Amino acid sequence: MAEMMTAAVEFAQKNRVRFVDELKALLRIPSVSTLPEHVGDVRRAAEFVAAELERIGMENVRLIETSTDERVIADASGHALLVPARHGHPLVYADWLHVEGGPTVLCYGHYDVQPAEPLDEWKSPPFEPTERDGNIYARGAVDDKGQMWMHVKALESLFVAGGGKLPVNVRVIVEGEEEVGGEGIARFVREHGDELKADVALVSDTEMFAPELPTLCVGLRGMIYTEIEVRGARTDLHSGMYGGAAPNPFVALAQVIAKLKDDEGKILIPGFCDKVAKPTADELKAWKALPFDEEHYRETEVGSVTLTGEPGYSVLERTWARPTLDVHGMPGGFIGAGAKTVIPARALAKVSMRLVPDMTPAESFAKYKAYVESIVPKGVELQVRMIHSGDPIVVSTDNAYVKAATEAMHEVFGKETVFVRGGGSIPIVGDFVRELKIPTVMMGFGLPDDNLHAPNEKFHLANFHRGIESIVRFLSGVGA
Amino acid sequence: MAEMMTAAVEFAQKNRVRFVDELKALLRIPSVSTLPEHVGDVRRAAEFVAAELERIGMENVRLIETSTDERVIADASGHALLVPARHGHPLVYADWLHVEGGPTVLCYGHYDVQPAEPLDEWKSPPFEPTERDGNIYARGAVDDKGQMWMHVKALESLFVAGGGKLPVNVRVIVEGEEEVGGEGIARFVREHGDELKADVALVSDTEMFAPELPTLCVGLRGMIYTEIEVRGARTDLHSGMYGGAAPNPFVALAQVIAKLKDDEGKILIPGFCDKVAKPTADELKAWKALPFDEEHYRETEVGSVTLTGEPGYSVLERTWARPTLDVHGMPGGFIGAGAKTVIPARALAKVSMRLVPDMTPAESFAKYKAYVESIVPKGVELQVRMIHSGDPIVVSTDNAYVKAATEAMHEVFGKETVFVRGGGSIPIVGDFVRELKIPTVMMGFGLPDDNLHAPNEKFHLANFHRGIESIVRFLSGVGA
Repeated sequence: MAEMMTAAVEFAQKNRVRFVDELKALLRIPSVSTLPEHVGDVRRAAEFVAAELERIGMENVRLIETSTDERVIADASGHALLVPARHGHPLVYADWLHVEGGPTVLCYGHYDVQPAEPLDEWKSPPFEPTERDGNIYARGAVDDKGQMWMHVKALESLFVAGGGKLPVNVRVIVEGEEEVGGEGIARFVREHGDELKADVALVSDTEMFAPELPTLCVGLRGMIYTEIEVRGARTDLHSGMYGGAAPNPFVALAQVIAKLKDDEGKILIPGFCDKVAKPTADELKAWKALPFDEEHYRETEVGSVTLTGEPGYSVLERTWARPTLDVHGMPGGFIGAGAKTVIPARALAKVSMRLVPDMTPAESFAKYKAYVESIVPKGVELQVRMIHSGDPIVVSTDNAYVKAATEAMHEVFGKETVFVRGGGSIPIVGDFVRELKIPTVMMGFGLPDDNLHAPNEKFHLANFHRGIESIVRFLSGVGA
Repeated sequence: MAEMMTAAVEFAQKNRVRFVDELKALLRIPSVSTLPEHVGDVRRAAEFVAAELERIGMENVRLIETSTDERVIADASGHALLVPARHGHPLVYADWLHVEGGPTVLCYGHYDVQPAEPLDEWKSPPFEPTERDGNIYARGAVDDKGQMWMHVKALESLFVAGGGKLPVNVRVIVEGEEEVGGEGIARFVREHGDELKADVALVSDTEMFAPELPTLCVGLRGMIYTEIEVRGARTDLHSGMYGGAAPNPFVALAQVIAKLKDDEGKILIPGFCDKVAKPTADELKAWKALPFDEEHYRETEVGSVTLTGEPGYSVLERTWARPTLDVHGMPGGFIGAGAKTVIPARALAKVSMRLVPDMTPAESFAKYKAYVESIVPKGVELQVRMIHSGDPIVVSTDNAYVKAATEAMHEVFGKETVFVRGGGSIPIVGDFVRELKIPTVMMGFGLPDDNLHAPNEKFHLANFHRGIESIVRFLSGVGA
């Protein structure tokens, strides 16, 4: 077994250039799951991944269609028609289950990406992967195509080293809707959990706490992503003629948003924070020991004049263990250059909240919606909609899989692994806990300055290769 | 003189169809002055107007170029280059000055239009003028191409009736920057006032108080149109990883905007309303006598659940004689369909304020800017910019020109003329007062439901023709 692992690591080292070239081909596919015009690209990315899983020796490779939601409309003659309201992107499934009596690892990743806008801030085109200073720049480089590809390449290396065999049973599930809420995989896990039966899940969609510091993520925030729509006048009006009598939807939204958080960042929704579980004393102590300099973080990662957030909590507590609320965009009205004196008939705010244990999306949304509906400004009508949500989770560190992961990374990096939480959401990890009753090892190789969801997203190539080696060692360790 | 007037009115009546066809040709030119891609269209509209003024018999017809602002940038080899920062759109000038010792009327209009967005709310394309129910629908139909064309057609009718002569000296000045602040004409009036020497200006860019009710506008609100730009983090950030530590520019803007007006609509900027002159008791009494039903207005014109605005003032006072503040759009972040969990690095708010006598744009902007800068939320940097401005004005009704206008409209409509104010801004009227020392007769033929600056802008064709006849009679009256 140790020989097979060593041979797999050697194979991976010899094939570095090809592995990166293949990743580049995948990154060239603009699989932006939230934009309807990229439906075909998203499918191409799924087919690309499936073909490679087939080639390296995985079995039962198939695309699993997720349902496309439909809604009823009336056609010209009044008959009901079903039309697509949401495009479902396929799951990619594969397995290799020939180690009788051995454990099964479920490898999860996603092949879809965030939109690349604003395009003019990219130094090289988002879908033309470019190497600079030891990094590969492209939308999806680290989130999550690059990290998902590590899994595939670790499996390939093990297959070659093992003469067509793996040291452990493996199932692979790769989704194409992670950036739009992951409804398809959530439903599949709920309804077909037996087809994903495993002992542990491996997710590489998180980051290292610092360069060279092997990191396991053992907690994630959940989220609710919402839209508030405000309607005032029936049609757009001229602010000269109607200013002083017609309601202004943007002013109304501003009044609502200003009442969601206080000036310090504390959320004002009644009862919203009631269920927040404080991190354990041990956890807080460990976080204090991490190499973290608030001023360095402010300057290099955020770049704002000061940091914001609730007083009395450290930055790590605020981003890992406290609920937060952000506004992402306010569509409506006139946004071109110059001046247009319009009072728009409607305006929207895209508002999301991050949740922490033991909050739930349903209860949090209910409190938020009730509060917003209780502060509707005069003259406007208001609608609150949930776009998607994910549970917050904490993973127990007390099992053999986390230990195997810790050891694997220690071998590769030569350093003790640190345990952290993540501020972002990976809803599937909650689904694995709830539906499959399995823990997840979150072994991620991104860096804090990798520009996730922002222009100039990158992946440090050394970490891509170290990730492959870590996963080879982890899978071998679980199988041992 | 009376004969010439009658002949002119008859000529106008016989040529109704042609007059409307010509207007349609002008409306087909998308002369949107605020959008750089329409620079060529704006010029085509100017040339169209100039050609017609020449054809009907006006003299000294010319385009007057307004300067294009430039800014300095560096070229590839580091040399300074001047590039256009703002395209100046030409003025169209013409005159006919052969009534020795007679008064001179300065006819003003504008050939530029507002952007047509949102396009999907138009029932017929904005630049394909369409007749429905006695109206002509197109962007610019009433604001101001249709009303400016009334002037041209009144002059043509008088020329034909007078055998090549007019009853009064006339200068025509038509601008192409009214919808973007009118900088070019303001500078021309300031620096070349002698070339526009006149006794009275005629402006048809206002509306009738009600259908069939001849109306003269004797007061206008001024305005300041501004942008607030808020910058937080250096680059767009992921709200999962940074939510709770990174400032959110939209939340900051919401906090600022919520402090600009109270929940009732009262402006909270310190000292902003200090110089507001109350309308006279006579004016208030006359406004109360106007046929105005607040509930009908709410339902048919605004369409919101309730009206908004300062308590203690009627709708007419709130829209004619009180300062107001509106937000027109909030560019930045993610505005597409679906979800993107970005904390944008920057966001903007387009905010304008309407001013009333005796406020001034400069003083109002200074107070606004100082106040906004005093309430900058934590963690963000903020810039306040003036985009453009216009003086509020009140015109004295106590002169021969207003009387001539009153009489002309009385003849055409068979009803007493009412005196109102307008809530919108026509900055040029202030410039005429300040620089040329002449009063302006604001004789407009729009209707309250003409959808100025909104989708489905229209002009009632009966009013187009009555406008031409009213102007024929007014010019004849002034010349008598």
